[in-house]
Amino acid sequence: MTRAARLFGAVEAGGTKFVCAIGDETGAILSESRFPTTDPAATLAAVRAFFTEHRTHRLAAIGVGSFGPLILDRTSAKYGCIGKTPKAGWTDVDIAGMLAREFACPVGFDTDVNAAALAEHRWGAGQAAASLVYLTVGTGIGGGVLVDGMPLHGLMHPEIGHIRPRRHLLDEKFAGICPFHGDCLEGLASGPAIVARSGSELSQLDAAHAQWEIQADYLGQLCAQLVLTVSPQRIIMGGGVMAQERLFPGIRRRMQHWLGGYIDRAEILDDVDRYVVRPALGARAGILGAIGLAMSAAGTA
Amino acid sequence: MTRAARLFGAVEAGGTKFVCAIGDETGAILSESRFPTTDPAATLAAVRAFFTEHRTHRLAAIGVGSFGPLILDRTSAKYGCIGKTPKAGWTDVDIAGMLAREFACPVGFDTDVNAAALAEHRWGAGQAAASLVYLTVGTGIGGGVLVDGMPLHGLMHPEIGHIRPRRHLLDEKFAGICPFHGDCLEGLASGPAIVARSGSELSQLDAAHAQWEIQADYLGQLCAQLVLTVSPQRIIMGGGVMAQERLFPGIRRRMQHWLGGYIDRAEILDDVDRYVVRPALGARAGILGAIGLAMSAAGTA
Repeated sequence: MTRAARLFGAVEAGGTKFVCAIGDETGAILSESRFPTTDPAATLAAVRAFFTEHRTHRLAAIGVGSFGPLILDRTSAKYGCIGKTPKAGWTDVDIAGMLAREFACPVGFDTDVNAAALAEHRWGAGQAAASLVYLTVGTGIGGGVLVDGMPLHGLMHPEIGHIRPRRHLLDEKFAGICPFHGDCLEGLASGPAIVARSGSELSQLDAAHAQWEIQADYLGQLCAQLVLTVSPQRIIMGGGVMAQERLFPGIRRRMQHWLGGYIDRAEILDDVDRYVVRPALGARAGILGAIGLAMSAAGTA
Repeated sequence: MTRAARLFGAVEAGGTKFVCAIGDETGAILSESRFPTTDPAATLAAVRAFFTEHRTHRLAAIGVGSFGPLILDRTSAKYGCIGKTPKAGWTDVDIAGMLAREFACPVGFDTDVNAAALAEHRWGAGQAAASLVYLTVGTGIGGGVLVDGMPLHGLMHPEIGHIRPRRHLLDEKFAGICPFHGDCLEGLASGPAIVARSGSELSQLDAAHAQWEIQADYLGQLCAQLVLTVSPQRIIMGGGVMAQERLFPGIRRRMQHWLGGYIDRAEILDDVDRYVVRPALGARAGILGAIGLAMSAAGTA
């Protein structure tokens, strides 16, 4: 049986750049445009211009994956808005509301990392895992969580990057760089934290440098905490820091160390190489995730 | 409009006692029986006898809330069984399968703490919170998680009691008592851990004793980690240790401390007395949760 392909709009709303696209439910992108994030008025005007230009496509829905924090509580008058952010002018900006009003279609809205989690589940490294975590370790540390294929929300959305790992024995002096917490995970193991501690990016450091061991331990603790709280069927780790693929074996070992044999599942004890994995979609996860959010909003999921 | 009340069976399968009951969807219990947990054959025979005796009720479904670990992965051949447990003879015991075969009705099956979370959501302290965490702090530390009203599963179920808090400055010498992890949360803050550290139960210790501060800090860290990972709309804390109500203010303060103002929500910053709360159902949460699981299995949820 064939049918006319339904088309979806997608917005990847990042702190430094926006991507707008039109795609279908196979994840194929028909048209795409990218531009820098400036002030909200100019940036949203560019988003509006993109979808106005593509108006003939009669989109089934539009999905938006955005930098946070976001108001995702549907009982809130501010549902769909960006929350209190240090990014000048962006607090309370209502991207989803603007799109729904202007283009009269359902709008799906979620965090960039929840969107990436959805994309990896539909088309990437999480295809057999309806409950998974997508982590990005780069300028910051963030995580999206799917439970039974649905992005997790509650009071807000996960803010996984700010949990507190135990300090590594070789890292007792570094104060960490998170402006809120100092030595939370993001303050200790993000890209800028690595540079602040060691004076260099991870990729420039010798394999024997303690930074590798410290980094693997902190990220292994993160994975262990996630196993014990949200119990994902898979953990996908991307972002600039994770481009250093030799981190993975150490992270897996340290996750197993911190779990101490307590979670009696082959996925953790034996097949750990398939449990903590690289993303399959790379930098495409953001915009594809927004297509996925649109599909969910249109009710085709 | 009136209708004939539908009736549900319920089993609270605990490590020391079993409770069997018949109830309706208002949470009213019509009949109940309790007996000690012995070997699986004798214990399941008593469960079977209870429901055989009440066969005339034509139950819409039976719910089972059980001690764990449990196999909740529906693709597993062992779905519904108890996992590897030190409790002699109970590994691989299939309570749910036995009930489904013998009484030819849908059977809902979940952890005791997920069941308690469901009960508090339907009839107790979590009625306005579809995403919540129910914690029990007693002989052990366990947690159930609801996301949009549904108990959270993935690879397994949450095992929240085994996360690793940072060690409190006044508690650097105690090794902890968890046989798997030593100083995980359960190893540091369960009832037996308090006794092992201080030689006394919390209720016997003077209000100025450091144990109160240590305990509040560890449980506050637990709450903060949960806010950052599963983002509940409410955290309900029960169990024997939490009968010491004066723990609550300290736990709330320490949760706020560890979050460091990062989660910009009134629930955390201002109304925290309504965010971290006591259970409303007390010891009834277990059997009522099993009624809730039966209702979900029957499709009336």
